[in-house]
Parts: sequence; C-alpha cells; structure tokens
Amino acid sequence: MKLSTRQKDIIELVKENQPITSEQLANRIGVTRAALRPDLAILTMTAILEARPKVGYIYSKKPTSSIVYDYIKKIKVKDIMSKPVTLDEQTTVYNAIVNLFLNDVGTIFVENNGCLVGAVSRKDFLKIAIGGTDINKVPVGIIMTRMPNIIFVEPEEDAYSAAQKIIEREVDSLPVIEKFTEENEEKFKVVGKLSKTNITRLFVKMGEENQ
Amino acid sequence: MKLSTRQKDIIELVKENQPITSEQLANRIGVTRAALRPDLAILTMTAILEARPKVGYIYSKKPTSSIVYDYIKKIKVKDIMSKPVTLDEQTTVYNAIVNLFLNDVGTIFVENNGCLVGAVSRKDFLKIAIGGTDINKVPVGIIMTRMPNIIFVEPEEDAYSAAQKIIEREVDSLPVIEKFTEENEEKFKVVGKLSKTNITRLFVKMGEENQ
Repeated sequence: MKLSTRQKDIIELVKENQPITSEQLANRIGVTRAALRPDLAILTMTAILEARPKVGYIYSKKPTSSIVYDYIKKIKVKDIMSKPVTLDEQTTVYNAIVNLFLNDVGTIFVENNGCLVGAVSRKDFLKIAIGGTDINKVPVGIIMTRMPNIIFVEPEEDAYSAAQKIIEREVDSLPVIEKFTEENEEKFKVVGKLSKTNITRLFVKMGEENQ
Repeated sequence: MKLSTRQKDIIELVKENQPITSEQLANRIGVTRAALRPDLAILTMTAILEARPKVGYIYSKKPTSSIVYDYIKKIKVKDIMSKPVTLDEQTTVYNAIVNLFLNDVGTIFVENNGCLVGAVSRKDFLKIAIGGTDINKVPVGIIMTRMPNIIFVEPEEDAYSAAQKIIEREVDSLPVIEKFTEENEEKFKVVGKLSKTNITRLFVKMGEENQ
C-alpha cells in the first residue's frame, strides 16, 4: 500500500494528538476539511485510522494485522511443502540414520505397504544411539512414534493451521497425507512434508516479494 | 482492511475481465460511473487495482505484500528470541547430549570463559554417537562447529534478516550475541537463541492477533 506524503503526515498527527477532529487536522496541515476528506476516507477504510463519532480520529493499534492474516491464510500446505523421505518399517535404525544424513532431513516417515504407520526424528535416533542398543539389528518400526499419534496435514489445508499444529504439538515437521480407503479401512499415503523450515522459508519469501 | 461487498465484486470482475474500463465495470454492476468512483479510488490507492491510462483497470499481483513486508520488518530479534543453552567446551559429549534432552533443544552453544567459541547440533551428536567413539571421554569442544564459522545475530537486528540467515546458511538456530572487547580482542557473549521455532511461532502469532 502506497500512502501519500499527506496521508503519512495525517497518521503522525493522529498518533501524537489522538483523539483529533478533522477540523483540527485541517488546521494543523493548513488545508480545508473538504481537501482532507478523501485522505481520511482512505485511512479509515484501510483501518489505519478509526473515526469515533463526536470524539475524533484515533490510530488503530493493529492496522495491518488483518491484511497480514488474510495474506497468510491464502497460502496452502501444497504450495510450500517439501518432498518427504519415507522408509519401510523393517529398515534397520542404522540404515535409517544413513538415509537421514544422505537426505539431510530431520524426520523420516515410516510406511508399511505404502501407508503411513509412523515417524522417527533425529531426537529418537540420538536416544537409541547412546542407549547401547545394536542399531544394526533393531528395525526402525520399533523406535518410531506410531499412528494414530502422528499429527498430519492435508495438501489443501492452509499453511497457517499447519504452523499452529507444529507449535502446539511441539514437533519439527508434519507428514502431508492423502486419505484413501482400502478394505473398509481409512489409510494415509504420504505425499509431502511440512516443517519449520518450510514456514521459515515462507516467512522470508513474504518479505522478498517486495524488494 | 475491510472491503465492502461492492469493492469485492469489482475485484472479481477485474480479475476475470482485465483490462476493464470503469464504464464496462459500471455497466456490469448496473450503476453509474460516478457511483463507482470512490470505490475505484480506494482500490487503486491501496494498490489492489492498478489503473492504466487508456487501457483500464488490472488486478495487481501482489497487493498486500508491501504491508506484510513493513509489518515483518518491524519485529526485532530481541522480541522473539529464546533462552540459550550454553555449556563449557570441556563438557563431555555424553553430558552435552543429556543437557540437550533435559532442555529439549536442538542446538547447544559452547563457551570458553563465558565467550562463544562454537555450536553443536543434534546432527553433530548423532554423527559421533554412531561413529563408535567413546562419548564419555571426548569433550564437546572437539566435535563442535568452531568460531568464526558460526553465523550469529544481534538483539537489535530485525527478525526478518535472522530468518534469511537461517535459510541461506541452512542452520536450525542462531546464537544471539552481544559484542564486547577484552584485551584488544572482539568477543561475543551469548544472550539468546533464535531458531526456526521462533520464526514459526511468530508466524502463528501474526495470524492470532486478528482472531
């Protein structure tokens, strides 16, 4: 949004003198009230200023957050998700760790017959690695967090609610899944991954578009 | 920003028929051109629509990004940083890992005489843990990433450039430092931590303010 110099002046005057009437504003700026009318209309419709009847104009505390919110809400999980790394639950912990390093990811999603059954993170791997277990013998299915304890998102959900789930559940990433039914059972196919990295990258992109 | 129903209708009509003149818009909506003038003024001043002389109105591709950008740029590192976990470089790798779990963090900052000398992440710990080294004997100073290879931020920097550093350098978190001089040498004291978690939390907060 490109504000004119006069509109910026009005905002500053309101901030310093609120509440302030349009007459007082016109006096300060040295123009007629009529000349200010279009500017005040813009500033109130954009919710930067609030017009209180018989009181005057005040500066709205969070003028831009609704715009930021609207912008954020438009972005979908499928727009920012990454390729997931998946392994079969019979894979040994050692091989899973090698895969973690090769793909440079923090979480691996575990499948059985192509369906999501669990997830393992660097934290899970570190715990077992220092525990004295033979990681060449234990399959990843033994140490993973198992469904239904995995929080997931779907491609059409908005990125904002995915970020909320990440923060509330204190996880680093979520599997992005598509539901399907097989033998009367609801199953989940992993189609992507949404992590704090994707959110941070989105945050950076939100700024870049304007540079 | 609260748009009226008519303003929303105008936006939709422009999106579908751009470029479209004010006369065509007035015809479609069934009002006079004069009646549309205030709405079109609002929509162009807020940069949602662009008026091209002798062509008509077109929909601006990134109407809100500048507002989002201005909003993002106002937030400083000190506003969103977390408490850092620091250990002396003589600490054993085993004890450092225990600390990592106790504090539930992904990165530990390593100090010598209260000054930042390095950082160790879950990834570094996992690498040494599966390598067959005796983690009870090796001090964390041996496996850490050492200064000056640590990217840091200062409390007064904006959160946006911190997020940029995280993405560009592919790290999970940055130490927040304060510089000081000791015996003619520039040194760094760790005063906080800024991670992808802080950025994701900020992203969630940006939306919450409006609910």
